[in-house]
Amino acid sequence: MIDVALLGTGGMVPLPNRFLTALYCRIKGRYILIDCGEGTQIALNILGWGIKNLDVICFTHFHADHISGLPGLLLTLGNSGRTEKIYIIGPNGIKKIIRSLCVIAPEIPFEIKIFEQDDLQQNFFKFENQDFIINFLPVEHSIACLAYNIFLPRRGKFNLKKATDLKIPKKLWSVLQSGKKVLHNGRIFLPKDVLGEDRPGIKISYCTDTRPINDLINFVYDSDLFICEGIYGDENKKDKAISKKHMIFSEAANLAKKSHSKELWLTHFSPAMPDPKNYLDHAKNIFENTVIPHDGMYKKFIFRN
Amino acid sequence: MIDVALLGTGGMVPLPNRFLTALYCRIKGRYILIDCGEGTQIALNILGWGIKNLDVICFTHFHADHISGLPGLLLTLGNSGRTEKIYIIGPNGIKKIIRSLCVIAPEIPFEIKIFEQDDLQQNFFKFENQDFIINFLPVEHSIACLAYNIFLPRRGKFNLKKATDLKIPKKLWSVLQSGKKVLHNGRIFLPKDVLGEDRPGIKISYCTDTRPINDLINFVYDSDLFICEGIYGDENKKDKAISKKHMIFSEAANLAKKSHSKELWLTHFSPAMPDPKNYLDHAKNIFENTVIPHDGMYKKFIFRN
Repeated sequence: MIDVALLGTGGMVPLPNRFLTALYCRIKGRYILIDCGEGTQIALNILGWGIKNLDVICFTHFHADHISGLPGLLLTLGNSGRTEKIYIIGPNGIKKIIRSLCVIAPEIPFEIKIFEQDDLQQNFFKFENQDFIINFLPVEHSIACLAYNIFLPRRGKFNLKKATDLKIPKKLWSVLQSGKKVLHNGRIFLPKDVLGEDRPGIKISYCTDTRPINDLINFVYDSDLFICEGIYGDENKKDKAISKKHMIFSEAANLAKKSHSKELWLTHFSPAMPDPKNYLDHAKNIFENTVIPHDGMYKKFIFRN
Repeated sequence: MIDVALLGTGGMVPLPNRFLTALYCRIKGRYILIDCGEGTQIALNILGWGIKNLDVICFTHFHADHISGLPGLLLTLGNSGRTEKIYIIGPNGIKKIIRSLCVIAPEIPFEIKIFEQDDLQQNFFKFENQDFIINFLPVEHSIACLAYNIFLPRRGKFNLKKATDLKIPKKLWSVLQSGKKVLHNGRIFLPKDVLGEDRPGIKISYCTDTRPINDLINFVYDSDLFICEGIYGDENKKDKAISKKHMIFSEAANLAKKSHSKELWLTHFSPAMPDPKNYLDHAKNIFENTVIPHDGMYKKFIFRN
């Protein structure tokens, strides 16, 4: 199960009724934040899920509207009594950027462990004791930028035939089924010895700010939720979107369609577009299950049957 | 005339209904901002006075809740088409801090001219073509911190006797009265040749975060409006305020009383104090004209008769 909240839907400038785009995910009581622009901690406060168990902050890129809220959030975390280490992931150069930003937050009472893209050669990040995986993909913006997906895998069903064929003692079945390996009478048993093939997991993809490059189709493929920028809805603004290395609603919808995503939430709306709903049809004509979310919109995603 | 708006009343953390403390002043169509924490540009947007003619940003100190909104505001100013130079004033070290913060706002299309405390040996700042003066005073916080006042002087009344005694040609009177000096038939005439003594100007003082040091009494003396921090209202929290180098309502009220200020607005409330009005009497018992402002509260100050 993954709880997903889109903290804001704005791009470039925080507005009175539109916070900057950022994603908050809850998986088994732990939290992941993607992007943290000015005001994100106010949006987190309104959401009310708490920030104490925030483990990872991922950054798409280093434009102020995606990162300037970091020093304030780190200080608030510190003031809340946090002492646990926090992880930060971002494009190459993020260590230097964070060192620079944190001149105004010098007294953080917990360790910050930062991974740049090149530190994670396989383009993913995984905690040792957590199931979920954070994958990233370099995309095409005016500066280095990453798209992310969060994937929670699901083990296969218990396979009685395998378990009995392999003569696995019955008392080990439930432990193996829970995903742990067992050493028993000098023999090692693995979860796959009692399980069928992995079943579809939950996949949440988040993509801003970029042109709709082809690599995104594979990266986003089969997402339960695809959150994607749509800076403009108006088709006539495509050239402007191209020049600024963004995309318009119809381009996001095409990505959703080609990637066989289940649901598309548009975001990162230009401040020059007061009502994105006026352009919703431009996306729906291509990908029916498109949503113009409101700030703080959240949804629970469970494993498919 | 000075229009004054208190953009927020919060300290430390921006809250859903309480922006961080910052002051916005309008004098003859030009603007001065003091402090710019996370969310200040949202509060400016709500206020609706515009930011195009913002000339000076003053910083009390470099804690995130007073400065982290700067990169976003500078970018928004840039996107609004501004090309005029902007001035920044702050404690020593501010040049380095701003260089660090602006790694996430690398493309600012206007010049930023920064004055540190030591660059302004007289402890004030004045534009060549503007009447108002920005004065500052080092105060006592956990890091270097400045209090500010903005002073708009008022010339004396026209003095007919002086003008005729000094045989000043009648056609020069109005120019001299407007504050300009005149060279006429090889002789220089000064405004003071036709004016009486300066009359009381308008003085707006702003003071956060500090202990109530004695120097503040002189600095704030005879303010039309004294905006002062009161992190806690509860008298029992005085020790906590002392340890954090802040002040409580009664201490701010004592400063207002001793400085013969006309009006006191408390601000920079702790997030642990949901309703500062509960403690208003603690200040009013000492200084009657104390106000607990709401975010965005504004008032016009005109010359006294």
